[in-house]
Amino acid sequence: MRLEVVTIGDELLLGHTIDTNAAHLARELAGIGVSIVRRATVGDAAGDIAAGVRDALDRADGVITTGGLGPTSDDLTKESIAALFGRRMVLDERILADLERRWADRFGGPLPASNRQQAMIPEGATILVNRHGSAPGIWLENERGRWVAMLPGVPREMRGMLADELLPRLAARVGADPTVVRSAVLRTTSMAESALADRLGPLARGIGSLSLAYLPGQEGVDLRLTSRDARAHEADAALAAGLAALRERVGSSVYAEGAADLAAIVLDGCRARGLTIAVAESCTGGLLGARLTAIPGSSDVVLGGVIAYGNRVKVELLGVSPDDISAHGAVSEPVARQLAAGARARLSADVGIGITGVAGPGGGTAEKPVGTVWIAVDVRGEAVVHDGRYIGDREEIRFRATQRALDLLRRRLID
Amino acid sequence: MRLEVVTIGDELLLGHTIDTNAAHLARELAGIGVSIVRRATVGDAAGDIAAGVRDALDRADGVITTGGLGPTSDDLTKESIAALFGRRMVLDERILADLERRWADRFGGPLPASNRQQAMIPEGATILVNRHGSAPGIWLENERGRWVAMLPGVPREMRGMLADELLPRLAARVGADPTVVRSAVLRTTSMAESALADRLGPLARGIGSLSLAYLPGQEGVDLRLTSRDARAHEADAALAAGLAALRERVGSSVYAEGAADLAAIVLDGCRARGLTIAVAESCTGGLLGARLTAIPGSSDVVLGGVIAYGNRVKVELLGVSPDDISAHGAVSEPVARQLAAGARARLSADVGIGITGVAGPGGGTAEKPVGTVWIAVDVRGEAVVHDGRYIGDREEIRFRATQRALDLLRRRLID
Repeated sequence: MRLEVVTIGDELLLGHTIDTNAAHLARELAGIGVSIVRRATVGDAAGDIAAGVRDALDRADGVITTGGLGPTSDDLTKESIAALFGRRMVLDERILADLERRWADRFGGPLPASNRQQAMIPEGATILVNRHGSAPGIWLENERGRWVAMLPGVPREMRGMLADELLPRLAARVGADPTVVRSAVLRTTSMAESALADRLGPLARGIGSLSLAYLPGQEGVDLRLTSRDARAHEADAALAAGLAALRERVGSSVYAEGAADLAAIVLDGCRARGLTIAVAESCTGGLLGARLTAIPGSSDVVLGGVIAYGNRVKVELLGVSPDDISAHGAVSEPVARQLAAGARARLSADVGIGITGVAGPGGGTAEKPVGTVWIAVDVRGEAVVHDGRYIGDREEIRFRATQRALDLLRRRLID
Repeated sequence: MRLEVVTIGDELLLGHTIDTNAAHLARELAGIGVSIVRRATVGDAAGDIAAGVRDALDRADGVITTGGLGPTSDDLTKESIAALFGRRMVLDERILADLERRWADRFGGPLPASNRQQAMIPEGATILVNRHGSAPGIWLENERGRWVAMLPGVPREMRGMLADELLPRLAARVGADPTVVRSAVLRTTSMAESALADRLGPLARGIGSLSLAYLPGQEGVDLRLTSRDARAHEADAALAAGLAALRERVGSSVYAEGAADLAAIVLDGCRARGLTIAVAESCTGGLLGARLTAIPGSSDVVLGGVIAYGNRVKVELLGVSPDDISAHGAVSEPVARQLAAGARARLSADVGIGITGVAGPGGGTAEKPVGTVWIAVDVRGEAVVHDGRYIGDREEIRFRATQRALDLLRRRLID
């Protein structure tokens, strides 16, 4: 099955909103063995929507759209695609009744006129039920069996509808597809892409039927290995052998297989060893705490911490020596150590993580340029301290520092 | 000038990486009056790259690509587009010398073979200098004046090359374009899209030559107004009048014009009034601190705070009453108040912000379902407390809670 995706919205095309739906769609479809061969983004104009969907449908068996199903005047997806299919718009009484009931439950009044148009659907369309919002999705198929599935643009609604309605429908369709595709991702960190490429060398051009892709990002470099075979057990066996070969060459820089976040890996490691964590963050200002607590169920490991942005907070809340700040500067090895130790002591935690650095864009010096970050990881009184230089803007430097801090703790746990 | 963008990479198509380059490109091009009419994403296969660029070039005057210029085996952009233009690849001695020098400076050895291919360019191409990385960009133009600009996929390198090399070149080309396009964005928060649409009513279909778009996101709903006219002063005047009309109808829910982050607005407001901030975060776990300190120069306002994830941290570091936690629960009005007051007192700050809630997915009850968040904003001992229910997953609930906390403080500052 050849599938294309068209994401719709001026806000996407004009760069006001980052398109996260397309990535989510791709990952979920990969899970049922369906690949997206091309993705397009068009604005809210009816002509652009119709042209984008028409071009995609010329090449593909099916097209998934996101966006343009809402109640406002710039939501034109259904009308544009109905016109492309030569269908008129008709009122669906069940959708209207459902919209009216939802509105009354939530706001207690009659449905505004702008929301009524959400009950209009192309003639002959199938409804994709929206359990997470008001705009229903639409499945429209032509006489040649080519189809368009229209999903909402709000990520939560799109994700719910995809899982509830569209994936089961597509999984049933692809059941007959004879080529088995298996792929897996190894996540690596603290190692540059070119260093990985040189180490992997001959593997980079593929191992037998396998193909290898480098996926660099702020978290590190992910390695995706894909295996294709007519027989499922052959595809699985080749993938397993390829993964083992990659792991052997890359070693401890591999921190996970799959989509796992490094914070989740570290939390699992601490949980298994009965360790609790406290953080003391200067230049990252809470970002490490935010990443750790973004993981559901983190509260049995993460006690909390101190955002020690100003120097007085470092001294008064965490017991950092003002003399060391004067002598070595706030961005220094002794201050990182004392931040980590102070967090451990004040929160009675097993692990303390201290981060202090120059995130920029100002504040750099010849000795400590922007990107310099000291990190200390103190496990029950034994600290390792790391002096890093991170590239990128303020956001990247801060994120990379939290990633390195997590990786330092991960490596302590597997020692 | 009709422009299209093709972003290249399996990691984008397969959903492994969120495409942030496309949005950045769109915003920067809008700044010189150039709109992108369609965007496509293709994988790393040579045939897919060539087909995507060919289709875009059939419709557009120029195409910008990102990605596929790196040193690894899946970087095929230059070769694919050279083939499309019927050009052979030639070694550029200056690029090679530059690559060798950079490598020696940074790693102190000879250039690896995998990096040498970065010095190959299509015959007749113009180099776009990369001051932020090793892969040079390429400008390739055909005999009909249609062109492709190839930029790297690494966001930092792409952004630098766009600003240094491509924008000046395009600005010179569009100087002759007779239609003036002016647009501006008003950012709103704490107000639903349908409520805005009903309030704006007739404005939604456009005011004279103006067009209005709703751009909903986690931060709130942005309103983008676009004005087109042959004469620049007419376009400016219509836009100014439209913005004034929008501001009057929407009122205090407008927090900014342009791309400003609410955290930056709040920091500016506090700075102007000489107020310092301390945070006490439970369910957001440091995210509010991270957002505030993401803004360069935040250190004169933000002192820091306490990530009070566990209840013992709330009691011991911030003086929250254990009796109130027992009687009302950690997610309650008195605990939010005491978190805010405790942060103020412990860090000697003017403003304390306390957040405590149920971010989910677990932990919800009938009385306090997932999404319930109490926020207290204490300015010099006078607190306002807000009881919110936020929709979405854990990440959305946490982000929306920080946005509401910032908005509560913003409204205090303009009272």
